[in-house]
Amino acid sequence: MGLVFQVDRTDAGGGRHGRLVLPHGVVETPVFMPVGTAASVKTVEQGVLEETGSDGVGAQIILANTYHLYLRPGHELIARMGGVHRFMSWERPMLTDSGGFQVFSLSSLRKVTPDGVEFRSHLDGSKHFFSPEHSMDVQIALGADVMMVFDECVEHPATYERTRDSMALTHAWAQRSKDHFETNKERVPWFEERGGKTQSLFGIVQGGMYADLRKESAERLVEMELPGYAIGGLAVGEPREVTREMIARTLEWLPKDKPRYVMGVGYPDEIEEYARMGVDMMDCVLPTRAGRHGLVFMREEAGGPVVRMNIKRKEYAEDARPIDESCGCMVCRRYSRAYLRHLFVSGEALGLTLNSVHNLAFYLDTMARVRGDLAG
Amino acid sequence: MGLVFQVDRTDAGGGRHGRLVLPHGVVETPVFMPVGTAASVKTVEQGVLEETGSDGVGAQIILANTYHLYLRPGHELIARMGGVHRFMSWERPMLTDSGGFQVFSLSSLRKVTPDGVEFRSHLDGSKHFFSPEHSMDVQIALGADVMMVFDECVEHPATYERTRDSMALTHAWAQRSKDHFETNKERVPWFEERGGKTQSLFGIVQGGMYADLRKESAERLVEMELPGYAIGGLAVGEPREVTREMIARTLEWLPKDKPRYVMGVGYPDEIEEYARMGVDMMDCVLPTRAGRHGLVFMREEAGGPVVRMNIKRKEYAEDARPIDESCGCMVCRRYSRAYLRHLFVSGEALGLTLNSVHNLAFYLDTMARVRGDLAG
Ligand SMILES: [Zn+2]
Ligand SMILES: [Zn+2]
Repeated sequence: MGLVFQVDRTDAGGGRHGRLVLPHGVVETPVFMPVGTAASVKTVEQGVLEETGSDGVGAQIILANTYHLYLRPGHELIARMGGVHRFMSWERPMLTDSGGFQVFSLSSLRKVTPDGVEFRSHLDGSKHFFSPEHSMDVQIALGADVMMVFDECVEHPATYERTRDSMALTHAWAQRSKDHFETNKERVPWFEERGGKTQSLFGIVQGGMYADLRKESAERLVEMELPGYAIGGLAVGEPREVTREMIARTLEWLPKDKPRYVMGVGYPDEIEEYARMGVDMMDCVLPTRAGRHGLVFMREEAGGPVVRMNIKRKEYAEDARPIDESCGCMVCRRYSRAYLRHLFVSGEALGLTLNSVHNLAFYLDTMARVRGDLAG
Repeated sequence: MGLVFQVDRTDAGGGRHGRLVLPHGVVETPVFMPVGTAASVKTVEQGVLEETGSDGVGAQIILANTYHLYLRPGHELIARMGGVHRFMSWERPMLTDSGGFQVFSLSSLRKVTPDGVEFRSHLDGSKHFFSPEHSMDVQIALGADVMMVFDECVEHPATYERTRDSMALTHAWAQRSKDHFETNKERVPWFEERGGKTQSLFGIVQGGMYADLRKESAERLVEMELPGYAIGGLAVGEPREVTREMIARTLEWLPKDKPRYVMGVGYPDEIEEYARMGVDMMDCVLPTRAGRHGLVFMREEAGGPVVRMNIKRKEYAEDARPIDESCGCMVCRRYSRAYLRHLFVSGEALGLTLNSVHNLAFYLDTMARVRGDLAG
């Protein structure tokens, strides 16, 4: 058994409050998942991720990237160390992507065949090959609670024909991913110690910005009876209305009793909006990436619109206020805008950490508030 | 009143256990002081510095560098923000150096006259002038509990004549530092809110590697009746026996009822040795700088010699042990050598933080053990 998903309450707008029971713990949904690319949520310590209130941001589940861990330190090494949870000392739930997105966005000299993708490492130019079967083997070795089918990520914009052909390949790969996973799922490093619990494999709906293709993709994947479904290929440069439209339509075609995950979105107001539409899971590098660029999210007043503040700006040089006066995170409780600006301008690494911690807290607090509303 | 220093017990080897009462708190001595160059102990959050046990390293007092804060964000800005403690949100004792060491080691185009030093910023090439009076003004604006007289730092090696002349200049500057401090000490930003408590100005014994000059320097400074004395100009490239010899000799000539501070040393076994000889205070960038280079300190067995471990080494790739099995720090409680190696090799910033935290804990735990021994 990989997961149990239970919806407690669905409100009029489609948003639902629920819980996802995974081998490494229970996740209250809707949930935002910080991204721990190479088994580290960049600049943030695991204790800060898991603690709450004045000690941390209270992450329930985090992601790791299969592509990065496959290249370095290697999935076999991580399996020998007991899996990615033990390797990075994170005992709560985790999710790995399939590696597909990074193969298509980071590596060079890609050659896609029906069998899989040949590519060169962005680190050293070495040659590698990822097939659906290989992605499953790598993700089983890493041992996250949730893993994703291997899919082709189509460029944006893409023609209808190109999108349709890519989708067909993705469906064939999804079936191969499932078949390989089913026959190998007992090989996860913690299978014995967790009493025979295993990982769960989620499907990914593709179809670009074409609603009829999205419908076909959803139907095809639902036939495969996977325990959860992601909506992929969004937030790739399309207008926000299109993203919302594609999510809204796709949600109609996905089963209501399974977790629904939108990959790689978004700004704090977007994640709130999608959660209220019925999305259960989201992930994005934005809180940490923005933080490392000196961008922090805040509201001028509680309940007001989200503002993106550039902490480098001269106007904060002597500003004794916290980033957000209604934020109770460990950064806002202790540090001023003036100090954060000084750290950033001076190139002090602590500034990147503190900006990232506040942004993660801002995202996770936003989702906690939405969960409270949806719980009724 | 700036400080009260009380020696509880002195053992046969000259080492003493005591306490230093400063406006921002009590420091048990001997003490190691982490260096917070630009108002940040590089990569380490203030909460981690102040917490103990599994939550932090338990720093009692930290340093900040006058030269760095003068250039950026500027001492006047920090004074307007309430002083460096409030600026960086560190409410425990602090010490600032005089800026002299960095002027002589980092800046370019220095021109030394009896009046002071003209130099160009290492950041933007802008021209600046530091005199004893100006160093006092800057340190009063920063508002650390302990500040240091402005001194010339002689290069190493230096001839007897050069060292003697430099020392004479340093003594004249020490007197000018004291005079200017005495007439301006009520201008510290927290004077009113701390009920009229002020900073304390320490002298610095120079004299290079010449024992007779060290003696003359100590005598001259003791005549000035300063509340504490540092031994400067060591750990500049001389053999370790020479450092120890200079410290041992100089300690004889310094009053036993005042705190004695050796600046800029050293390795963990050195700080232990000097503490047992009667040094009360030490600071060094080594724990954090080494950590950022992937070097961590440990002992193969409790009580054994200090080993410098290069965490990058291949042999640690699958080593599930903590850095030091007898270390109880937050890093050794949670993370393996394998994970720390992975972070460092992958360029993950968290690796620099975790290495630095362990090294600081290692230094501070060493001093806590020495204090326990000296307390008898
Ligand atoms: Zn905050
Ligand atoms: Zn340790």
